Amino acid sequence: MPLVRIDAIEGRTELELAAIGAAVHRALVECFGVPERDRFQVITEHRRGQLVYSRDYLGIERTDGLVVVQVFLSTGRSDEQKKAFYARAAGLIEKETQTRREDVFLSLVENTRGDWSFGNGAAQYLTLPRDEWK
Amino acid sequence: MPLVRIDAIEGRTELELAAIGAAVHRALVECFGVPERDRFQVITEHRRGQLVYSRDYLGIERTDGLVVVQVFLSTGRSDEQKKAFYARAAGLIEKETQTRREDVFLSLVENTRGDWSFGNGAAQYLTLPRDEWK
Amino acid sequence: MPLVRIDAIEGRTELELAAIGAAVHRALVECFGVPERDRFQVITEHRRGQLVYSRDYLGIERTDGLVVVQVFLSTGRSDEQKKAFYARAAGLIEKETQTRREDVFLSLVENTRGDWSFGNGAAQYLTLPRDEWK
Repeated sequence: MPLVRIDAIEGRTELELAAIGAAVHRALVECFGVPERDRFQVITEHRRGQLVYSRDYLGIERTDGLVVVQVFLSTGRSDEQKKAFYARAAGLIEKETQTRREDVFLSLVENTRGDWSFGNGAAQYLTLPRDEWK
Repeated sequence: MPLVRIDAIEGRTELELAAIGAAVHRALVECFGVPERDRFQVITEHRRGQLVYSRDYLGIERTDGLVVVQVFLSTGRSDEQKKAFYARAAGLIEKETQTRREDVFLSLVENTRGDWSFGNGAAQYLTLPRDEWK
Repeated sequence: MPLVRIDAIEGRTELELAAIGAAVHRALVECFGVPERDRFQVITEHRRGQLVYSRDYLGIERTDGLVVVQVFLSTGRSDEQKKAFYARAAGLIEKETQTRREDVFLSLVENTRGDWSFGNGAAQYLTLPRDEWK
Protein backbone atom coordinates (compact mmCIF):
# COMPACT_ATOMS: atom_id res chain seq x y z
CA MET A 1 0.00 0.00 0.00
CA PRO A 2 2.52 2.52 0.59
CA LEU A 3 3.34 4.33 -2.61
CA VAL A 4 6.87 5.63 -2.16
CA ARG A 5 8.44 8.41 -4.19
CA ILE A 6 12.21 8.73 -3.98
CA ASP A 7 13.91 11.75 -5.54
CA ALA A 8 17.68 12.22 -5.74
CA ILE A 9 20.32 14.07 -7.70
CA GLU A 10 21.58 12.01 -10.64
CA GLY A 11 24.86 10.15 -10.42
CA ARG A 12 24.15 7.10 -8.30
CA THR A 13 24.42 3.62 -9.78
CA GLU A 14 21.29 1.54 -10.33
CA LEU A 15 22.50 -0.76 -7.57
CA GLU A 16 22.79 2.10 -5.13
CA LEU A 17 19.32 3.39 -5.94
CA ALA A 18 17.92 -0.12 -5.56
CA ALA A 19 19.62 -0.45 -2.17
CA ILE A 20 18.06 2.81 -0.99
CA GLY A 21 14.64 1.61 -2.09
CA ALA A 22 15.16 -1.71 -0.36
CA ALA A 23 16.19 -0.01 2.89
CA VAL A 24 13.10 2.19 2.89
CA HIS A 25 10.92 -0.84 2.26
CA ARG A 26 12.52 -2.84 5.05
CA ALA A 27 11.87 0.00 7.50
CA LEU A 28 8.22 0.14 6.36
CA VAL A 29 7.84 -3.59 6.92
CA GLU A 30 9.52 -3.56 10.32
CA CYS A 31 8.01 -0.38 11.77
CA PHE A 32 4.61 -0.09 10.11
CA GLY A 33 3.73 -3.74 9.54
CA VAL A 34 3.60 -3.27 5.76
CA PRO A 35 3.37 -6.67 4.01
CA GLU A 36 6.71 -7.79 2.61
CA ARG A 37 5.44 -7.97 -0.96
CA ASP A 38 3.56 -4.66 -0.78
CA ARG A 39 6.33 -2.69 -2.46
CA PHE A 40 5.64 0.07 -4.96
CA GLN A 41 8.27 2.76 -5.46
CA VAL A 42 8.84 5.50 -8.00
CA ILE A 43 12.44 6.67 -8.20
CA THR A 44 13.33 9.86 -10.08
CA GLU A 45 16.76 11.36 -10.62
CA HIS A 46 17.21 15.08 -11.12
CA ARG A 47 19.89 17.36 -12.44
CA ARG A 48 21.78 19.37 -9.86
CA GLY A 49 19.75 22.51 -9.29
CA GLN A 50 16.45 20.69 -9.76
CA LEU A 51 16.55 19.15 -6.31
CA VAL A 52 16.67 22.25 -4.14
CA TYR A 53 17.45 21.86 -0.46
CA SER A 54 18.67 23.73 2.55
CA ARG A 55 22.26 22.90 3.49
CA ASP A 56 21.64 23.59 7.17
CA TYR A 57 17.97 23.82 8.17
CA LEU A 58 17.52 22.61 11.77
CA GLY A 59 21.27 22.36 12.13
CA ILE A 60 21.66 19.35 9.86
CA GLU A 61 24.44 19.45 7.26
CA ARG A 62 23.02 18.25 3.99
CA THR A 63 24.91 17.54 0.78
CA ASP A 64 24.11 16.70 -2.84
CA GLY A 65 23.73 13.14 -1.58
CA LEU A 66 20.27 14.11 -0.31
CA VAL A 67 17.45 11.65 -0.90
CA VAL A 68 13.89 12.87 -0.56
CA VAL A 69 11.58 10.00 0.40
CA GLN A 70 7.84 10.66 0.35
CA VAL A 71 5.59 7.86 1.56
CA PHE A 72 1.85 7.81 0.80
CA LEU A 73 0.07 5.34 3.07
CA SER A 74 -3.19 4.64 4.86
CA THR A 75 -3.76 6.40 8.14
CA GLY A 76 -3.30 4.52 11.40
CA ARG A 77 0.32 4.84 12.52
CA SER A 78 1.08 6.61 15.81
CA ASP A 79 3.72 9.30 16.24
CA GLU A 80 5.80 6.72 18.11
CA GLN A 81 5.67 4.36 15.14
CA LYS A 82 6.57 7.20 12.82
CA LYS A 83 9.59 8.11 14.96
CA ALA A 84 10.72 4.48 14.87
CA PHE A 85 10.30 4.42 11.09
CA TYR A 86 12.39 7.55 10.53
CA ALA A 87 15.17 6.25 12.73
CA ARG A 88 15.17 2.82 11.12
CA ALA A 89 14.97 4.11 7.53
CA ALA A 90 17.82 6.58 8.00
CA GLY A 91 19.85 4.00 9.90
CA LEU A 92 19.42 1.30 7.26
CA ILE A 93 20.14 3.69 4.40
CA GLU A 94 23.35 4.84 6.08
CA LYS A 95 24.41 1.29 6.85
CA GLU A 96 23.61 -0.33 3.54
CA THR A 97 24.23 2.43 1.00
CA GLN A 98 26.65 5.31 0.40
CA THR A 99 24.13 7.85 1.70
CA ARG A 100 24.68 9.67 5.02
CA ARG A 101 21.85 9.72 7.54
CA GLU A 102 21.94 13.52 7.52
CA ASP A 103 20.93 13.33 3.87
CA VAL A 104 17.77 11.28 4.39
CA PHE A 105 14.67 13.49 4.17
CA LEU A 106 11.45 11.62 4.92
CA SER A 107 7.83 12.70 4.77
CA LEU A 108 4.49 10.91 5.08
CA VAL A 109 1.10 11.65 3.53
CA GLU A 110 -1.89 9.68 4.78
CA ASN A 111 -5.08 8.58 3.09
CA THR A 112 -7.59 5.79 3.82
CA ARG A 113 -8.10 2.14 2.92
CA GLY A 114 -10.64 3.03 0.27
CA ASP A 115 -8.02 5.05 -1.58
CA TRP A 116 -6.15 2.11 -3.09
CA SER A 117 -6.55 -0.19 -6.05
CA PHE A 118 -3.69 -2.63 -6.67
CA GLY A 119 -4.81 -3.79 -10.08
CA ASN A 120 -7.83 -5.24 -11.86
CA GLY A 121 -9.93 -2.22 -10.96
CA ALA A 122 -10.79 -3.49 -7.49
CA ALA A 123 -10.50 -1.71 -4.12
CA GLN A 124 -8.76 -4.62 -2.47
CA TYR A 125 -8.47 -3.08 1.01
CA LEU A 126 -12.24 -2.67 1.10
CA THR A 127 -13.09 -6.09 -0.24
CA LEU A 128 -10.37 -8.53 0.81
CA PRO A 129 -10.12 -9.73 4.42
CA ARG A 130 -6.99 -8.46 6.07
CA ASP A 131 -5.37 -11.88 6.40
CA GLU A 132 -5.28 -12.04 2.61
CA TRP A 133 -3.20 -8.87 2.28
CA LYS A 134 -0.08 -10.62 1.13
CA MET B 1 -9.29 19.85 -9.83
CA PRO B 2 -7.88 16.51 -9.79
CA LEU B 3 -4.16 16.68 -10.27
CA VAL B 4 -3.19 13.33 -11.72
CA ARG B 5 0.32 11.87 -11.71
CA ILE B 6 0.92 8.95 -14.04
CA ASP B 7 4.21 7.04 -13.78
CA ALA B 8 5.24 4.25 -16.16
CA ILE B 9 8.31 2.47 -17.45
CA GLU B 10 9.64 4.08 -20.61
CA GLY B 11 8.90 2.59 -23.99
CA ARG B 12 5.32 3.51 -24.76
CA THR B 13 4.48 5.79 -27.68
CA GLU B 14 3.22 9.30 -27.03
CA LEU B 15 -0.13 8.19 -28.42
CA GLU B 16 -0.36 5.34 -25.97
CA LEU B 17 0.49 7.56 -23.02
CA ALA B 18 -2.09 10.09 -24.16
CA ALA B 19 -4.71 7.34 -24.42
CA ILE B 20 -3.98 6.22 -20.85
CA GLY B 21 -4.36 9.80 -19.62
CA ALA B 22 -7.61 10.19 -21.56
CA ALA B 23 -9.01 6.98 -20.09
CA VAL B 24 -8.22 8.07 -16.54
CA HIS B 25 -9.84 11.42 -17.19
CA ARG B 26 -12.98 9.87 -18.64
CA ALA B 27 -13.36 7.69 -15.56
CA LEU B 28 -12.95 10.76 -13.32
CA VAL B 29 -15.65 12.60 -15.27
CA GLU B 30 -18.07 9.67 -15.25
CA CYS B 31 -17.60 8.43 -11.69
CA PHE B 32 -16.63 11.54 -9.71
CA GLY B 33 -18.45 14.25 -11.63
CA VAL B 34 -15.22 16.01 -12.52
CA PRO B 35 -15.85 18.74 -15.13
CA GLU B 36 -14.87 17.65 -18.63
CA ARG B 37 -12.33 20.44 -19.04
CA ASP B 38 -10.84 20.04 -15.57
CA ARG B 39 -7.90 17.97 -16.78
CA PHE B 40 -4.41 18.36 -15.37
CA GLN B 41 -2.02 15.43 -15.64
CA VAL B 42 1.68 14.97 -15.12
CA ILE B 43 3.11 11.94 -16.93
CA THR B 44 6.60 10.69 -16.11
CA GLU B 45 8.46 7.80 -17.70
CA HIS B 46 11.12 5.91 -15.79
CA ARG B 47 13.92 3.55 -16.63
CA ARG B 48 13.36 -0.08 -15.76
CA GLY B 49 14.43 -0.49 -12.16
CA GLN B 50 13.22 2.98 -11.21
CA LEU B 51 9.60 1.92 -11.12
CA VAL B 52 9.71 -0.80 -8.48
CA TYR B 53 6.67 -3.01 -8.04
CA SER B 54 5.57 -6.33 -6.66
CA ARG B 55 4.92 -8.93 -9.35
CA ASP B 56 2.31 -10.70 -7.25
CA TYR B 57 1.07 -8.72 -4.23
CA LEU B 58 -2.57 -9.64 -3.50
CA GLY B 59 -2.40 -12.34 -6.13
CA ILE B 60 -2.31 -9.97 -9.09
CA GLU B 61 0.25 -10.68 -11.82
CA ARG B 62 1.92 -7.41 -12.70
CA THR B 63 4.35 -6.77 -15.54
CA ASP B 64 6.59 -3.97 -16.74
CA GLY B 65 3.44 -2.58 -18.34
CA LEU B 66 2.45 -1.25 -14.90
CA VAL B 67 1.03 2.25 -14.74
CA VAL B 68 0.92 4.00 -11.39
CA VAL B 69 -1.90 6.54 -11.31
CA GLN B 70 -2.07 8.89 -8.33
CA VAL B 71 -5.03 11.24 -8.15
CA PHE B 72 -5.05 14.28 -5.87
CA LEU B 73 -8.59 15.61 -5.46
CA SER B 74 -10.93 17.35 -3.05
CA THR B 75 -12.61 15.21 -0.43
CA GLY B 76 -16.21 14.17 -0.85
CA ARG B 77 -16.35 10.90 -2.77
CA SER B 78 -17.79 7.82 -1.07
CA ASP B 79 -16.15 4.42 -1.02
CA GLU B 80 -18.80 3.27 -3.48
CA GLN B 81 -17.87 6.04 -5.91
CA LYS B 82 -14.20 5.16 -5.48
CA LYS B 83 -14.89 1.50 -6.26
CA ALA B 84 -16.76 2.54 -9.40
CA PHE B 85 -13.87 4.79 -10.42
CA TYR B 86 -11.25 2.06 -10.04
CA ALA B 87 -13.32 -0.39 -12.07
CA ARG B 88 -14.05 2.14 -14.80
CA ALA B 89 -10.48 3.45 -15.04
CA ALA B 90 -8.95 -0.01 -15.26
CA GLY B 91 -11.63 -1.14 -17.69
CA LEU B 92 -11.19 1.85 -20.00
CA ILE B 93 -7.42 1.61 -19.93
CA GLU B 94 -7.55 -2.07 -20.84
CA LYS B 95 -10.08 -1.48 -23.59
CA GLU B 96 -8.52 1.58 -25.18
CA THR B 97 -4.80 1.04 -24.70
CA GLN B 98 -2.27 -1.77 -24.73
CA THR B 99 -2.19 -1.91 -20.92
CA ARG B 100 -3.67 -4.88 -19.01
CA ARG B 101 -6.11 -4.19 -16.17
CA GLU B 102 -3.82 -6.11 -13.80
CA ASP B 103 -1.21 -3.46 -14.46
CA VAL B 104 -3.33 -0.47 -13.42
CA PHE B 105 -2.36 0.73 -9.92
CA LEU B 106 -4.56 3.56 -8.67
CA SER B 107 -4.39 5.64 -5.52
CA LEU B 108 -6.21 8.73 -4.26
CA VAL B 109 -5.08 11.54 -1.96
CA GLU B 110 -7.71 13.98 -0.75
CA ASN B 111 -7.53 17.64 0.19
CA THR B 112 -10.16 20.42 0.38
CA ARG B 113 -11.65 23.04 -1.90
CA GLY B 114 -9.43 25.74 -0.47
CA ASP B 115 -6.37 23.83 -1.61
CA TRP B 116 -6.59 24.72 -5.29
CA SER B 117 -5.64 27.64 -7.50
CA PHE B 118 -6.13 27.14 -11.23
CA GLY B 119 -4.29 30.24 -12.34
CA ASN B 120 -4.21 33.98 -11.78
CA GLY B 121 -3.48 33.52 -8.10
CA ALA B 122 -7.12 32.98 -7.15
CA ALA B 123 -8.70 30.19 -5.08
CA GLN B 124 -11.45 29.57 -7.59
CA TYR B 125 -13.26 26.85 -5.65
CA LEU B 126 -13.68 29.25 -2.74
CA THR B 127 -14.75 32.22 -4.80
CA LEU B 128 -16.58 30.96 -7.89
CA PRO B 129 -20.12 29.57 -7.62
CA ARG B 130 -20.19 25.88 -8.41
CA ASP B 131 -22.19 26.26 -11.62
CA GLU B 132 -19.27 28.21 -13.05
CA TRP B 133 -16.81 25.35 -12.56
CA LYS B 134 -16.41 24.61 -16.24
CA MET C 1 8.71 21.62 6.01
CA PRO C 2 6.92 22.23 2.90
CA LEU C 3 7.99 19.75 0.27
CA VAL C 4 7.33 21.46 -3.03
CA ARG C 5 7.01 19.70 -6.38
CA ILE C 6 7.24 21.89 -9.47
CA ASP C 7 6.45 20.40 -12.87
CA ALA C 8 6.85 22.24 -16.16
CA ILE C 9 7.33 21.62 -19.86
CA GLU C 10 11.00 21.48 -20.79
CA GLY C 11 12.69 24.48 -22.37
CA ARG C 12 13.27 26.93 -19.55
CA THR C 13 16.79 27.87 -18.49
CA GLU C 14 18.14 26.69 -15.15
CA LEU C 15 18.05 30.32 -14.02
CA GLU C 16 14.39 30.65 -14.88
CA LEU C 17 13.49 27.45 -13.04
CA ALA C 18 15.46 28.60 -10.03
CA ALA C 19 13.65 31.92 -10.07
CA ILE C 20 10.28 30.16 -10.09
CA GLY C 21 11.34 28.04 -7.14
CA ALA C 22 12.58 31.11 -5.29
CA ALA C 23 9.31 32.96 -5.88
CA VAL C 24 7.25 30.05 -4.53
CA HIS C 25 9.48 29.88 -1.49
CA ARG C 26 9.23 33.59 -0.80
CA ALA C 27 5.43 33.37 -0.91
CA LEU C 28 5.53 30.43 1.54
CA VAL C 29 7.72 32.42 3.92
CA GLU C 30 5.62 35.56 3.72
CA CYS C 31 2.13 34.04 3.79
CA PHE C 32 2.53 30.83 5.79
CA GLY C 33 5.36 31.75 8.13
CA VAL C 34 7.61 29.03 6.74
CA PRO C 35 11.19 29.45 8.04
CA GLU C 36 13.49 31.07 5.50
CA ARG C 37 15.87 28.11 5.40
CA ASP C 38 13.12 25.50 5.28
CA ARG C 39 13.32 25.07 1.51
CA PHE C 40 12.98 21.69 -0.17
CA GLN C 41 11.85 21.59 -3.80
CA VAL C 42 11.76 18.94 -6.47
CA ILE C 43 11.64 20.34 -10.01
CA THR C 44 10.83 18.08 -12.95
CA GLU C 45 10.68 19.00 -16.62
CA HIS C 46 8.48 17.10 -19.03
CA ARG C 47 8.21 16.71 -22.76
CA ARG C 48 5.30 18.47 -24.41
CA GLY C 49 2.37 16.09 -24.20
CA GLN C 50 3.46 14.75 -20.83
CA LEU C 51 2.19 17.77 -18.98
CA VAL C 52 -1.48 17.70 -19.92
CA TYR C 53 -3.61 20.72 -19.09
CA SER C 54 -6.83 22.44 -20.00
CA ARG C 55 -6.32 25.54 -22.11
CA ASP C 56 -9.45 27.21 -20.75
CA TYR C 57 -10.88 25.56 -17.60
CA LEU C 58 -12.59 28.22 -15.44
CA GLY C 59 -12.05 30.77 -18.18
CA ILE C 60 -8.30 31.03 -17.71
CA GLU C 61 -6.14 30.95 -20.84
CA ARG C 62 -3.25 28.61 -20.19
CA THR C 63 -0.24 28.01 -22.41
CA ASP C 64 2.71 25.65 -22.56
CA GLY C 65 4.29 28.00 -20.03
CA LEU C 66 2.19 26.31 -17.35
CA VAL C 67 3.89 25.50 -14.07
CA VAL C 68 2.22 23.01 -11.74
CA VAL C 69 3.21 23.70 -8.13
CA GLN C 70 2.19 21.16 -5.52
CA VAL C 71 2.97 21.99 -1.89
CA PHE C 72 2.92 19.34 0.83
CA LEU C 73 2.83 20.97 4.28
CA SER C 74 1.56 20.56 7.81
CA THR C 75 -2.03 21.46 8.47
CA GLY C 76 -2.90 24.72 10.15
CA ARG C 77 -3.31 27.42 7.49
CA SER C 78 -6.69 29.09 7.09
CA ASP C 79 -8.47 29.58 3.78
CA GLU C 80 -7.60 33.28 4.06
CA GLN C 81 -3.92 32.48 4.37
CA LYS C 82 -4.19 30.12 1.43
CA LYS C 83 -5.81 32.79 -0.70
CA ALA C 84 -3.01 35.19 0.20
CA PHE C 85 -0.43 32.56 -0.70
CA TYR C 86 -1.91 31.88 -4.13
CA ALA C 87 -2.07 35.57 -4.95
CA ARG C 88 1.46 36.22 -3.75
CA ALA C 89 2.99 33.18 -5.45
CA ALA C 90 1.38 33.92 -8.80
CA GLY C 91 2.23 37.61 -8.49
CA LEU C 92 5.88 36.99 -7.65
CA ILE C 93 6.28 34.40 -10.38
CA GLU C 94 4.82 36.77 -12.95
CA LYS C 95 6.96 39.67 -11.75
CA GLU C 96 10.27 37.87 -11.39
CA THR C 97 10.16 35.26 -14.15
CA GLN C 98 8.93 34.86 -17.71
CA THR C 99 5.84 32.96 -16.57
CA ARG C 100 2.35 34.50 -16.81
CA ARG C 101 0.11 34.43 -13.74
CA GLU C 102 -2.54 32.58 -15.76
CA ASP C 103 -0.03 29.75 -16.08
CA VAL C 104 0.54 29.25 -12.36
CA PHE C 105 -1.36 26.19 -11.10
CA LEU C 106 -1.07 25.71 -7.33
CA SER C 107 -2.30 22.96 -5.06
CA LEU C 108 -1.78 22.09 -1.40
CA VAL C 109 -1.78 18.74 0.40
CA GLU C 110 -1.73 18.77 4.19
CA ASN C 111 -0.29 16.35 6.72
CA THR C 112 0.76 16.74 10.38
CA ARG C 113 3.89 17.65 12.33
CA GLY C 114 4.68 14.04 13.00
CA ASP C 115 4.95 13.38 9.29
CA TRP C 116 8.37 14.97 8.78
CA SER C 117 11.98 13.97 9.26
CA PHE C 118 14.58 16.47 8.03
CA GLY C 119 17.57 14.20 8.37
CA ASN C 120 19.34 12.00 10.91
CA GLY C 121 16.25 9.85 11.33
CA ALA C 122 14.61 12.21 13.83
CA ALA C 123 11.08 13.65 13.82
CA GLN C 124 12.27 17.17 14.47
CA TYR C 125 8.85 18.81 14.63
CA LEU C 126 7.88 16.45 17.44
CA THR C 127 11.09 16.78 19.41
CA LEU C 128 12.52 20.27 18.83
CA PRO C 129 10.91 23.31 20.46
CA ARG C 130 9.39 25.59 17.88
CA ASP C 131 11.83 28.44 18.44
CA GLU C 132 14.57 26.14 17.19
CA TRP C 133 12.91 25.58 13.82
CA LYS C 134 15.44 27.54 11.85
